[in-house]
Amino acid sequence: MSDQPNRVSHESGATLRDPASDAYASAGVDVAAGNAAVERYRQVTGGRRHPGQIGGIGGFAGLFALPGDPSKALVASTDGVGTKLLIAAHAKRYGTVGTDLVNHCVNDILVANATPLFFLDYLAVGKLDPDVAGEIVAGVEAACRAHDMALLGGETAEMPGMYAPGHFDLAGTIVGVVDVDRVPRPERVVAGDAIVGLPAIGLHTNGYSLARALIPEAEWGDALLAPHPSYYEEVRAIERVADVKTMAHITGGGLLENVPRTLPAGCKAIFEQSRWSVPPIMAELVARGNLTHEERYRTLNMGVGYTLIVPMEDAGKALEAVPGARVVGWVEARSEGDPPVVVHPARD
Amino acid sequence: MSDQPNRVSHESGATLRDPASDAYASAGVDVAAGNAAVERYRQVTGGRRHPGQIGGIGGFAGLFALPGDPSKALVASTDGVGTKLLIAAHAKRYGTVGTDLVNHCVNDILVANATPLFFLDYLAVGKLDPDVAGEIVAGVEAACRAHDMALLGGETAEMPGMYAPGHFDLAGTIVGVVDVDRVPRPERVVAGDAIVGLPAIGLHTNGYSLARALIPEAEWGDALLAPHPSYYEEVRAIERVADVKTMAHITGGGLLENVPRTLPAGCKAIFEQSRWSVPPIMAELVARGNLTHEERYRTLNMGVGYTLIVPMEDAGKALEAVPGARVVGWVEARSEGDPPVVVHPARD
Repeated sequence: MSDQPNRVSHESGATLRDPASDAYASAGVDVAAGNAAVERYRQVTGGRRHPGQIGGIGGFAGLFALPGDPSKALVASTDGVGTKLLIAAHAKRYGTVGTDLVNHCVNDILVANATPLFFLDYLAVGKLDPDVAGEIVAGVEAACRAHDMALLGGETAEMPGMYAPGHFDLAGTIVGVVDVDRVPRPERVVAGDAIVGLPAIGLHTNGYSLARALIPEAEWGDALLAPHPSYYEEVRAIERVADVKTMAHITGGGLLENVPRTLPAGCKAIFEQSRWSVPPIMAELVARGNLTHEERYRTLNMGVGYTLIVPMEDAGKALEAVPGARVVGWVEARSEGDPPVVVHPARD
Repeated sequence: MSDQPNRVSHESGATLRDPASDAYASAGVDVAAGNAAVERYRQVTGGRRHPGQIGGIGGFAGLFALPGDPSKALVASTDGVGTKLLIAAHAKRYGTVGTDLVNHCVNDILVANATPLFFLDYLAVGKLDPDVAGEIVAGVEAACRAHDMALLGGETAEMPGMYAPGHFDLAGTIVGVVDVDRVPRPERVVAGDAIVGLPAIGLHTNGYSLARALIPEAEWGDALLAPHPSYYEEVRAIERVADVKTMAHITGGGLLENVPRTLPAGCKAIFEQSRWSVPPIMAELVARGNLTHEERYRTLNMGVGYTLIVPMEDAGKALEAVPGARVVGWVEARSEGDPPVVVHPARD
């Protein structure tokens, strides 16, 4: 999907994946439709590639040569908060969804090693409540400021008839910059490398259609609204002491779909779940939904929010640099027919 | 609003404007709430301005210094299609909404003289239909290609419970580049300059909440779905032969709100409606809604889609360069208390 980075929605779970995911389908997300849409987009663009486009970071963000200086690239990504917004709207808590949005986007371009430059938000409502809109945009602004990034613009659209009362949508676009020779390259990854994981503090912005289906409204609370963290400072701290080869932001698709995008064809990733903590909200969803092993690691982050592949000899330094970081797995040679990611214990 | 360009929605009509607009209010758009939201955003950002931000083009787009070369600026804008989408959904015609979106954004950064580089779209649906999504994105792609612009990424979000069946939202972000010394400066405009207008072919992407309120569903048709044109080639053709001082994209807010952003404090714009044609759809809305003079020119483009201010002696060359271009008005000195824009005949 390098021609169409960041399509289709992480939130939707509609990246190319197993259409047999029962739990997700019963939550109203049509995985087969998502796969079909991805195929349509491929046909539509006909593989067209603008001369300014630069490929090769696994679809987390798009890269475009900086005008006048092709040694640098602009790195851009558009994302939405998804149905976590329905929970925020239900709880009437609007202060953190802007943080969710900005941090998600920061992490998506961080995978390409990009430094954020500016952000634009899109807020769509059926009926405009200035207090609510102000609270939402305050969250966007605060998260931008935390990354020394400009909130360069935005759009607030009042669209009568489009949304149910109290509902709204929030999306945004980030643009950053990176030296092209610092864009991670999966071909540098070799068997024996360590996979360092940064802890997730909750669902972040994924799995909410599933969570809404499994957890009754009356029980929606703080655990479901825990904000999506930015991994910017942690990643920079690790990069100062370790040779970071590739990184993945673990969003929709989980470890099973996001990590393969950071591996060369001849390698697979082995995770050992005993090496990190699964947040209680994940355990709750697994239990209530009786989720299969596949469903858990394809729909939820299961406690790992971001991964970095480093040489095994650098792993200790990485853990020292960031409290909470863990070696969560390693890279092995992949034979034909092997899945690209295995999570032990590999059973339901 | 230079700190918060492009806020609040053109479509919503919720820019700072007369809260007494009866026609718009009865169509479900709350103008007072829009004004209040704009004030909230001002408070929220606290006038913060990132060192990379460059001001001064009247809020159509945001400017950010190009990394490594401050003689150039990146120019970015986020916009949505608005409630025109409800008409497209009703008619099940999805091929042109992508054109609407891209062309709207191209025109918004064209006001800053920017050349488009890349685009990212955001498509949100309640239930993902791959055929519909493919048709929408095909329109986005075609309009990007027409401007030699990369479709660098995008997000398709399936959000069960967020939208009514068949409804969807479409927004997008454009990034372009401009030489800073080629960004138009309103202070160059003087009394006696000519205002050249480029023709609108319909509502473009504004006034649809009003149109939906005034025109019964059974009559929604081609006239309401006429695509938003790009003025890119026309503007470049005029720039080759005339000294273009400032430009305005006539979207929500009409001539009354968009043209003042391109004038210095000591100048006002005088338009003579007899100098151009009002499209039949506008005349229809004016008649059905019994719209006041103020409502017409603040909610609808009334047939002028884009304006360019040039020295009077260059006006003839501009008209020769672009068939359909008209001198629609001129600039006069503005005394204290004068409105910044007058459209003759100035009566209901």
